[in-house]
Amino acid sequence: MHKKLFIPGPIDVKKDVLEQMSRPMIGHRSKDASALQRSISRKLQEVFCTKEGILLSASSGTGLMEGAIRSCTARRAAVFSIGAFGERWYKMAISNNVSADIYRADKGDIITPEMVEEVLRTGKYDLVTVTHNETSTGVMNPLEGISQVLRNFPEVVFCVDAVSSMAGTKIEVDKLGMDICITSTQKCFGLPPGMAMASVSQKAIEAAKNVKNRGYYLDLLELYNYIQKKDYQYPSTPALSIMYAMDYQLDRILEEGLENRYKRHLDMAQCVRDWAKKNFELFPKEEYASDTVTAIKNTKGIDISWLNRELGERGYQISNGYGDLKDKTFRISHMGDYTLEDVEGLLETIDEVLGCGN
Amino acid sequence: MHKKLFIPGPIDVKKDVLEQMSRPMIGHRSKDASALQRSISRKLQEVFCTKEGILLSASSGTGLMEGAIRSCTARRAAVFSIGAFGERWYKMAISNNVSADIYRADKGDIITPEMVEEVLRTGKYDLVTVTHNETSTGVMNPLEGISQVLRNFPEVVFCVDAVSSMAGTKIEVDKLGMDICITSTQKCFGLPPGMAMASVSQKAIEAAKNVKNRGYYLDLLELYNYIQKKDYQYPSTPALSIMYAMDYQLDRILEEGLENRYKRHLDMAQCVRDWAKKNFELFPKEEYASDTVTAIKNTKGIDISWLNRELGERGYQISNGYGDLKDKTFRISHMGDYTLEDVEGLLETIDEVLGCGN
Repeated sequence: MHKKLFIPGPIDVKKDVLEQMSRPMIGHRSKDASALQRSISRKLQEVFCTKEGILLSASSGTGLMEGAIRSCTARRAAVFSIGAFGERWYKMAISNNVSADIYRADKGDIITPEMVEEVLRTGKYDLVTVTHNETSTGVMNPLEGISQVLRNFPEVVFCVDAVSSMAGTKIEVDKLGMDICITSTQKCFGLPPGMAMASVSQKAIEAAKNVKNRGYYLDLLELYNYIQKKDYQYPSTPALSIMYAMDYQLDRILEEGLENRYKRHLDMAQCVRDWAKKNFELFPKEEYASDTVTAIKNTKGIDISWLNRELGERGYQISNGYGDLKDKTFRISHMGDYTLEDVEGLLETIDEVLGCGN
Repeated sequence: MHKKLFIPGPIDVKKDVLEQMSRPMIGHRSKDASALQRSISRKLQEVFCTKEGILLSASSGTGLMEGAIRSCTARRAAVFSIGAFGERWYKMAISNNVSADIYRADKGDIITPEMVEEVLRTGKYDLVTVTHNETSTGVMNPLEGISQVLRNFPEVVFCVDAVSSMAGTKIEVDKLGMDICITSTQKCFGLPPGMAMASVSQKAIEAAKNVKNRGYYLDLLELYNYIQKKDYQYPSTPALSIMYAMDYQLDRILEEGLENRYKRHLDMAQCVRDWAKKNFELFPKEEYASDTVTAIKNTKGIDISWLNRELGERGYQISNGYGDLKDKTFRISHMGDYTLEDVEGLLETIDEVLGCGN
């Protein structure tokens, strides 16, 4: 039996979107390939609210995150971490011999503008990474204040991991002055995994020119220069089938309307939060709770693996807590093309399993 | 109109294989995901003729080629190049600050065992890369003699790019002592682009342990350790839809029988070579001509772009020459699930366009 996935990616993909992947192959050096990649890039510019360049990569979001910190750090990177994916960005820097320091918020907490300002005032850093939405703790980091701080440090490249939030909540890349904003297919875009997408500002590209040993496959400058020269074609063979689905799904997303899409995500989030507060507790403070995934304190000491097995028999899957939050928390995602009814169906089923219904 | 692709990848994918990609998503941390990746890995071991480990990557073949030379070169790599993809491997080394030297054969020629022996006798190298099948020149490099030389240098990691040959011609990884053999989906496997696959020997893994700054996403040691610990699951979200198609298509490949599949590729190659010799000239010496793509000297000075436009109107696409061989050569691939009849149909159509039929 298929389980409806309420995990923080991959999530269910609509049948008509999946079917786009059955379209026949085209040559990746053809005009059709240029047209496809141009079309996708322009639609992504709308979703990212940016006029800057778009890069596509046959990799997971992790691939372009590594590409960003490695390609654009000439001196030293400040990694602001609110959980597992911040830690990963730091690990990527170190494993590439990129000088970096990590600044951590407590789990469930956010990075404040004051933290960022204090760190940048040292003058040691030319690149900053921030996790927008941390699926391990269900925290959505407010970007507005951080972006205001960054305005006072125009020499610093501002990189944001929006892997699990872009297309699910409003992120205005240009307005917030983000130089590199990274996302991937299998979260709020409602697409299958296998590709990452990023916006890159001219400033980020200029920064990369001063960096040696950027590698090849994930070198943002190599990708950027190539698509400029070759009419949106890439150095390596791209994941055509996923791009067919992406081009189609971006039309669906823009047809729904971005504001409507954000509202739907917020409504689903509110519904899960209300349920969580009634039956358990939210893991983060409510004001920082993510619009795309809710982390819930397991205040009843439920066996989460058992709960998930029971849900599995009823056609649903949720997530246990991440790392050392396993069993202490559990997570319900609400991203992509799910509706409020889908979420209500899940919550009713959990109530039924737990015998704590109305 | 769909054009039947006789370019050296991507090539046409059968409808039933494409349709596998419409299967619904599963959690990438589920037992189902482990089972899928275990199943693929075991079938790939059969195709690679290896008992060593298999790594899967959501990237093009280029991704794992970079991962190999970067992860496993502790001292210095010797890159043996017979064309564009050998040059790429060298570029990857340099862009990662991996010490490397490149040794080139003339275009259309092969790497001889004597060349390899002379280079390795210097004692400078701990890793060797060889392109098995060079699509830019239509040359298939004989591996037997090179592999015999490598036996005398047991400290050297032997890496082979079999991106455009694995599953189209016999490559016995363990018998030939290859430590890392890399391929990708969109060539002889008859799958859509977006994933790379490699075999890795225990020796390659041990070598990687002595290398610093291996990066993260393409670090072969990270991937290897992770799948050992996590029952075939990977650090980042894998390209599930392509894996559905791969698991299915590997059954089709094994059902056809590997020897039958090689024979079919050879028959198609022979047919194209005979046609090329009758009407043009082969670009490489016939004894080195690839079984998966034929490079043909444009002895008639035909406008290849025009020819391809004319073929396009008739539902076919071939490739111009690569780089500075453009217009001087053209290329016809014969890989994946095409039959002799498909190839004959193409050649008859070219004859018709060129008016040089029987």
